[in-house]
Amino acid sequence: MSLPKRILIVGLGLMGGSYADALSSKGYEVYALAHRQSSLDFAVENGLVRGGSIEVEEEFVKSFDLVVFALYPHILIEWLEKYHKYLKPGAILTDVTGVKSSIIPGVMEIIKDDDVEFVFAHPMAGKEVYGVENADKEIFKKANFIVTPMTTNNEESINLIEELGREIGSNHVTRLSPELHDEMIAYVSQLAHIIAVSLMTAKDCDSLYEYTGNSFRDLTRIADINDSMWSELFLDNKDTLLDQIDLFMGEMKKMREALDKGDVETMKSMMKLSSERRRKFRS
Amino acid sequence: MSLPKRILIVGLGLMGGSYADALSSKGYEVYALAHRQSSLDFAVENGLVRGGSIEVEEEFVKSFDLVVFALYPHILIEWLEKYHKYLKPGAILTDVTGVKSSIIPGVMEIIKDDDVEFVFAHPMAGKEVYGVENADKEIFKKANFIVTPMTTNNEESINLIEELGREIGSNHVTRLSPELHDEMIAYVSQLAHIIAVSLMTAKDCDSLYEYTGNSFRDLTRIADINDSMWSELFLDNKDTLLDQIDLFMGEMKKMREALDKGDVETMKSMMKLSSERRRKFRS
Repeated sequence: MSLPKRILIVGLGLMGGSYADALSSKGYEVYALAHRQSSLDFAVENGLVRGGSIEVEEEFVKSFDLVVFALYPHILIEWLEKYHKYLKPGAILTDVTGVKSSIIPGVMEIIKDDDVEFVFAHPMAGKEVYGVENADKEIFKKANFIVTPMTTNNEESINLIEELGREIGSNHVTRLSPELHDEMIAYVSQLAHIIAVSLMTAKDCDSLYEYTGNSFRDLTRIADINDSMWSELFLDNKDTLLDQIDLFMGEMKKMREALDKGDVETMKSMMKLSSERRRKFRS
Repeated sequence: MSLPKRILIVGLGLMGGSYADALSSKGYEVYALAHRQSSLDFAVENGLVRGGSIEVEEEFVKSFDLVVFALYPHILIEWLEKYHKYLKPGAILTDVTGVKSSIIPGVMEIIKDDDVEFVFAHPMAGKEVYGVENADKEIFKKANFIVTPMTTNNEESINLIEELGREIGSNHVTRLSPELHDEMIAYVSQLAHIIAVSLMTAKDCDSLYEYTGNSFRDLTRIADINDSMWSELFLDNKDTLLDQIDLFMGEMKKMREALDKGDVETMKSMMKLSSERRRKFRS
């Protein structure tokens, strides 16, 4: 099975637009369903897509063998509830959602009697800006593209979505179970955003920011955040995220206590372990 | 008063070496007192300094009107205890120490009867590598150079050290009281390092790091850390740092509780405040 020439993107925000940009630049015929006419117009005028609609029409949707959903989690569910019957029999579906365990059961319930296959995936790409106007295929270049297969997925369909990840430019296409994906995302992404936000809100220090060095700048780069999207993603991964916050807070407390007691050995041993682990990162 | 042509650097690590590099490239005649002959040899061979010694001799030290101490806090105190009488009458001294309130009284006690003036300063520059071999004048380019004057300092001497900051390349030379400096450093630098270290030590997740996105990479860049230096700096700023840790932890707890209760409004309002503040950063 190889990727079809025509691909439908549902949702034309930053992710949908970037997906369209990446696929169009590889010669695919990309079409989109958008929420706003202005987004669609922008995408057409800038060559991201060949065309599309803001109306969801059965004939149009049924003409695609591959559909990429680039929607907020709750909008993905709403869309499928309304239109899943429009999907072409045999179609392969995928998504870009940043949480998996909470969304998969709802999606699977809706399409359980349909002859379509959903292979969930998460391109770990983004920018601190929103909207199709900021779409950019480059965001996928050094990003992980994580496929989170279910036991019910066909190997062939999984391979197809992995191929899609490579086609949009990811140099690191991998598989994780939905549960492990969500734990990993909670720790390396969601917790990171909570830390960045808390650093910015904990102290009203306009005057201090003048002195900010690179460390603080790096730690808070992601503190300029889409509050609607991230609060939804946090809540959709709530229990796992709470666990990861507690894990981190426990470690902060350990360092705080060591400092309070003047326990240099504990401080140093944490720093040594930290240094050792950090050096292993792929650059 | 203008900067003397000949300048002595005491301590040839990353900071001392970078200082020497910056000043030599501006045409100053830079000499150094080093702990290891190999460091001095490297600095001479690479044109960072014209010469120097690993022995501290009175005649040599007395030939400088300006001395920059690039030493760990406790070593600065030890050095001054042993050799402060070697300093030239009328000499201006400065340092690179990352904490101020804890070191100033000790230094001032030692030199109180000497005819020298110490203008404390902190070039907020660094790298995740150590030693004179990694010295690089470029680290000062976009860095803040903070002078922390005491009420006893002459305006003329303060100006001289500010001029020194501009000469090594800082485009942001400012003044802060030692107390405000330490609070700022505790928050934007020391706390940032504790967070980065805790993120790396809280979870043994070698397999997860494979999926690390840019957010986590940015937040942990400084987690590869010089444990001797940082544990000393933390302890030298203990009370202030404990306060800043508590401030941050309180805010993390607030976000955790909002998430736990599904209190979207609190989550969003924190994110909005965070975004608003972050956008104000000078780029």
